[in-house]
Amino acid sequence: MSDFYGQDLHGPYETFDLGDFALEDGGTIRGAKLAYATHGKLSTSKDNAILITTWYSGTSKIMEQTLVGPGRALDPERYFIIIANQIGSGLSSSPHNTQGPFHGPDFPSVRIGDDVVAQHKLVTEKFGLSQLQLVTGGSMGAQQTYEWAVRYPDFVRRAAPIAGTAKNKPHCWLIAQQFIDAMTSDPAFRDGYYNSVEEVRLGLVRHARAFAVTGFCQHFYKHELWRNVGFTSLDDFLTGFLGGYFLPMDPNNLILMARKWQRGDVSRHTGGDLKAALGRVKAKTTVMALSTDIFFPPADVRDDAELVPGAKFEVIETSFGHAGLFAIEPSYATQVDKALRVLLD
Amino acid sequence: MSDFYGQDLHGPYETFDLGDFALEDGGTIRGAKLAYATHGKLSTSKDNAILITTWYSGTSKIMEQTLVGPGRALDPERYFIIIANQIGSGLSSSPHNTQGPFHGPDFPSVRIGDDVVAQHKLVTEKFGLSQLQLVTGGSMGAQQTYEWAVRYPDFVRRAAPIAGTAKNKPHCWLIAQQFIDAMTSDPAFRDGYYNSVEEVRLGLVRHARAFAVTGFCQHFYKHELWRNVGFTSLDDFLTGFLGGYFLPMDPNNLILMARKWQRGDVSRHTGGDLKAALGRVKAKTTVMALSTDIFFPPADVRDDAELVPGAKFEVIETSFGHAGLFAIEPSYATQVDKALRVLLD
Repeated sequence: MSDFYGQDLHGPYETFDLGDFALEDGGTIRGAKLAYATHGKLSTSKDNAILITTWYSGTSKIMEQTLVGPGRALDPERYFIIIANQIGSGLSSSPHNTQGPFHGPDFPSVRIGDDVVAQHKLVTEKFGLSQLQLVTGGSMGAQQTYEWAVRYPDFVRRAAPIAGTAKNKPHCWLIAQQFIDAMTSDPAFRDGYYNSVEEVRLGLVRHARAFAVTGFCQHFYKHELWRNVGFTSLDDFLTGFLGGYFLPMDPNNLILMARKWQRGDVSRHTGGDLKAALGRVKAKTTVMALSTDIFFPPADVRDDAELVPGAKFEVIETSFGHAGLFAIEPSYATQVDKALRVLLD
Repeated sequence: MSDFYGQDLHGPYETFDLGDFALEDGGTIRGAKLAYATHGKLSTSKDNAILITTWYSGTSKIMEQTLVGPGRALDPERYFIIIANQIGSGLSSSPHNTQGPFHGPDFPSVRIGDDVVAQHKLVTEKFGLSQLQLVTGGSMGAQQTYEWAVRYPDFVRRAAPIAGTAKNKPHCWLIAQQFIDAMTSDPAFRDGYYNSVEEVRLGLVRHARAFAVTGFCQHFYKHELWRNVGFTSLDDFLTGFLGGYFLPMDPNNLILMARKWQRGDVSRHTGGDLKAALGRVKAKTTVMALSTDIFFPPADVRDDAELVPGAKFEVIETSFGHAGLFAIEPSYATQVDKALRVLLD
């Protein structure tokens, strides 16, 4: 087991015991754990809870860094903020930390809906909540946000999916498939039965390079914006940032998340009718897209926003493509916080 | 040698003997051949010649199919149209058809400038031309068009680079690098010393899948526009169209072209000063971008157009991304022909 997914880098976080957790696709995670972090205090009337969901490869730590803080829209002095790490994130139950026959590539198939059911158990059973003031998250976090609003319409008072869709589009499916293929095509991957992450370094490097192409955008590279984050050449950035970020991660974990991402689709609840599914949403909703996003371009994000009754649609200007979510540009937090404040007020 | 690059599929074409052709990067192609097709008749005063250049993986045949025809702007009844296959295309001198020590991966390094010098030899020595009414081409063909207009400003009366740039941008470099890596990472590639194209099928499939992501666009897949070209599912399209197109090609040929593409840069002529290089252009110029292009998005194409004295900039609407160049949409030819007619009149 890798040390990467621990309290040192990603904590503090706690774990909630889900028991034997039955999954939508038929499998069961035995002794399933959901890792989560909280910020702020739950009010006596339990009416100040916010849930943040995590993106592909992200954990509660980066969600905190990009969205939460005193003086920000998601202010722990005002709200009780729960950040739930998705299944497969490496902190919650994941291929790499599950022992026995379900280890690694034999971890059962998981869907976005399973994450949301697990999170619902956490917020009801652990915290006794009957509503959330807001559910928000970026990318796969937006997929979970949509799933929450469709599955538990009376629970979710407000929803703010950022840079994601309710039903994944085929181009985005292809991008995620390329990420999967980058790792599985490394001969050392051996159908997922590698002995250590280091063995699959070639596949992980290839995965990072694929992310470099579609996870950022043309503008970012043209204007050498990697200089703003401390890198001195394109290669320095590709290796230092993308390598630094992705190389310690477990390929089976990443692949599990990518497969969830590919199949994110709230219309499962309505026999494939996306309009009917999104018509169930009762939450006051603000959908945000990132202006230069290749994964989830504004036109695709808007498609789904238009099907949510009364939803607002906002485009966040960023020069970082989808990686705008990393909030490296100060203008990112300003824009997102403004939209969230309007939604929360 | 593969049968794929022959007269049956790509002809008719002829070859011009370039002799021992010295290259910008220092190598020499001995007994170099330039394959070209012509349409129409050269006028007695030799004032009706047009040159079309080829894109990555394309040959004179597809340039003819997408740009040339009676009643079109590039009408062989009016113009003498020469289509020159780039070095590495598989028809002109290329890694796969060069025997002896320079075969395959040992073929010397070639740049866009070499293609243009070779084409200049063809049109001056073979056809005795002293000017071209128009140079045009898409993608890498646009790179060659820019190179022509900068290198031989008095020769090129009009220029129409389509969906390409004068100096390749770093995001586009990354895309091409991903294509190269897709093939070289196949263990069967063996540093380019494979025995047959079929051995590198895994790498070629991976290359086709990478092209599927960035060579088309989100809109194309969202609206399942592959249905319009006779395919019945996404997989059917990926295998039937992209596999059908790319799998017969020689990886060393593709890699040679991709490396030219990556390093396309007319500012080599002016010590890195792109404005000074494009300031040399005397041709009346219309630069076209494709509205949904991920390789060369309109903003990047416009950057360079703005540096060409008096150039017009037009955005061609397409739902096919960069692959709009394949002219599968009838509206593509209509728009491009309109722009070319205005330029030629």
